[in-house]
Amino acid sequence: MSEENTENVNQTESEERATLVAARESSERIWEDINSGDVSRYRILTGDRPTGFLHIGHYFGTLKTRVELQNKGIDTAVLIADYQVITDRENIGNVREYVLNLVADYLAAGIDPTRSTIFCHSQVPAIHEMLVIFLSLVTEAELHRNPTVKAELEASKQSMSGLLLTYPVHQAADILCARANLVPVGRDQLPHLEQTRVVAKRFNKRYPERDAAGSKVKDSRGVLPMAQALLSSGGAIILGTDGQKMSKSRHNTVELKATADETAAIIKKAVTDSDRVITYDPVSRPEVANLLLIASLCTGEAPEVLAERIGDGGGGALKKLVTEALNDHLAPHRDRRAELMEDEGYLWSVLKEGNEKIADLGADTLRQMKHAMGMDYGL
Amino acid sequence: MSEENTENVNQTESEERATLVAARESSERIWEDINSGDVSRYRILTGDRPTGFLHIGHYFGTLKTRVELQNKGIDTAVLIADYQVITDRENIGNVREYVLNLVADYLAAGIDPTRSTIFCHSQVPAIHEMLVIFLSLVTEAELHRNPTVKAELEASKQSMSGLLLTYPVHQAADILCARANLVPVGRDQLPHLEQTRVVAKRFNKRYPERDAAGSKVKDSRGVLPMAQALLSSGGAIILGTDGQKMSKSRHNTVELKATADETAAIIKKAVTDSDRVITYDPVSRPEVANLLLIASLCTGEAPEVLAERIGDGGGGALKKLVTEALNDHLAPHRDRRAELMEDEGYLWSVLKEGNEKIADLGADTLRQMKHAMGMDYGL
Repeated sequence: MSEENTENVNQTESEERATLVAARESSERIWEDINSGDVSRYRILTGDRPTGFLHIGHYFGTLKTRVELQNKGIDTAVLIADYQVITDRENIGNVREYVLNLVADYLAAGIDPTRSTIFCHSQVPAIHEMLVIFLSLVTEAELHRNPTVKAELEASKQSMSGLLLTYPVHQAADILCARANLVPVGRDQLPHLEQTRVVAKRFNKRYPERDAAGSKVKDSRGVLPMAQALLSSGGAIILGTDGQKMSKSRHNTVELKATADETAAIIKKAVTDSDRVITYDPVSRPEVANLLLIASLCTGEAPEVLAERIGDGGGGALKKLVTEALNDHLAPHRDRRAELMEDEGYLWSVLKEGNEKIADLGADTLRQMKHAMGMDYGL
Repeated sequence: MSEENTENVNQTESEERATLVAARESSERIWEDINSGDVSRYRILTGDRPTGFLHIGHYFGTLKTRVELQNKGIDTAVLIADYQVITDRENIGNVREYVLNLVADYLAAGIDPTRSTIFCHSQVPAIHEMLVIFLSLVTEAELHRNPTVKAELEASKQSMSGLLLTYPVHQAADILCARANLVPVGRDQLPHLEQTRVVAKRFNKRYPERDAAGSKVKDSRGVLPMAQALLSSGGAIILGTDGQKMSKSRHNTVELKATADETAAIIKKAVTDSDRVITYDPVSRPEVANLLLIASLCTGEAPEVLAERIGDGGGGALKKLVTEALNDHLAPHRDRRAELMEDEGYLWSVLKEGNEKIADLGADTLRQMKHAMGMDYGL
């Protein structure tokens, strides 16, 4: 992403295209670094909202990539964004249980707490204080024009909550509190990262870095780092078993914590079509293709190969294959998560340690910010 | 203020009148309690933005009342709202110096740190985290319709900052973090207090208080207290020396830290009129009446009596009288503040102690809030 094209978060369509092109180019360069092992300058932030249990969409879409990035040696912070749960719902469910299960799934999937940091933002005070400072740096018009906020505005008949309106700024605080400079995102999330960059730029310009004596630091790059988008190169997007967007609320997915029998029951109800000859044709047979893709992700075989093997076995044979592939592939993960869930104390201790690490980091950044603002009173 | 008339912060004109009438009645009852010494149930929050030095407008308008309320035995918290400085300005000035001088003026005026608590919200993490939770409880439309926000929207050509838009909710966090249930306000600030009440009500309804085992507490009044407005019964409103609204930026006021000579110079430039016979006539001679009011507030004599004494002495004699009255009246305050300013360490220690007290109180309230939300993880 070019450094020049960042001052205005309210982009026109052509600016959006330019941002996307720049993000693609920059991501390519970063992936080259990563693949060559040149990772010491990167620090990643990624995460999930604890609104439910992780499912195979998360698993194949983001979780595996996170583990790979960690295993390449990149310092990785995984945020459980628990205050984002309250942005758009009154009934928040059992957040505590979702948080605990997230930690279990992270660890079971291979997130290693000695190399990565799992934290939740309700335990990191500096994030929310940064939100206050950052809110002073963006205008209401800019908040309105964030695409996610805008879509929510258009989709909903009701006025959105103040927290939904401001959540891209809260996200900026998450990223900057963890001092992350690399955020794996989808194309639709580029404007969020742009918001983070704008906030950091404006802060650095308005409040130049100062030394202990209060003098401006010469040639400083500013108190806050510039985060870059990492457009995913891996990460599969799979549909729900009904061919629609995969979502817990649509009951069209398999949760990682599901048993083999539960998995079989869900796949059995999956939508297919009436053609008994199974072929991999994502355009005209999206549901069948999606099931083949899921099996392919599990076995490592190409979907076309799997289709040929099934031949004229029809939907039944396809579902049998998908069920077996999923259950075989997920069995080790499920064993590990079950074992981990037997020791809740350990899971909470992992989260506690991560919270404390990010809280310390955030407190330190906030101290620097307040010093630049002349609002440190030495107390 | 009646308990019923509080759900909607977006009041029509007739609702606004009803709120005002209710607030007046309730304030009268509270003043009766206060004047009869029945104060144990009240806890006040009041405060200032550190955008400059306190002047005689603050002194006669709010500072003296605060000291009186403290001296009646009411538990009083005085907030230095340092993050409110950044709501509407890029150049924030020397906030540290303003904060220090505020503490000095508070103590010099009689705020007693053993009975009252002086704190600044940049040192109380729970306030900002409460803001996040509270933002989820209000809609954007409601934020828009707050009269101060609305006026700012209309007055300014530019889009307002996100922090200005949300500052009534941040104020709610200030009040509820300090567990204040009484807020001395002017009539124009009633909607702000209404916002605090709405936020507390919605929180209490959405997240009922729970005991340690997680069961709903029977007949609970909710985790958050209901704050009431206290419409001032004392507190004089004086104009600037140019007859306009008194404001540091208009250079039409006398700062408490000004010397006797500086005071004389400012009063010398005050606007009067060409009629040499001084009379107290606020309607047709507002500037002269305002100067008489200032002198009256200093000497305790009625403005009419002072006017008669000056007779046909004209503006010169009036200004001489006002200057002497002000300098005599403020001399003890100025001596005390000068003495206090010689020991900055002591002033900061007073603030530190207050910060810690409110931070503990806020952390405790936040703990209760998270418990009610099911978002306490026992970490």
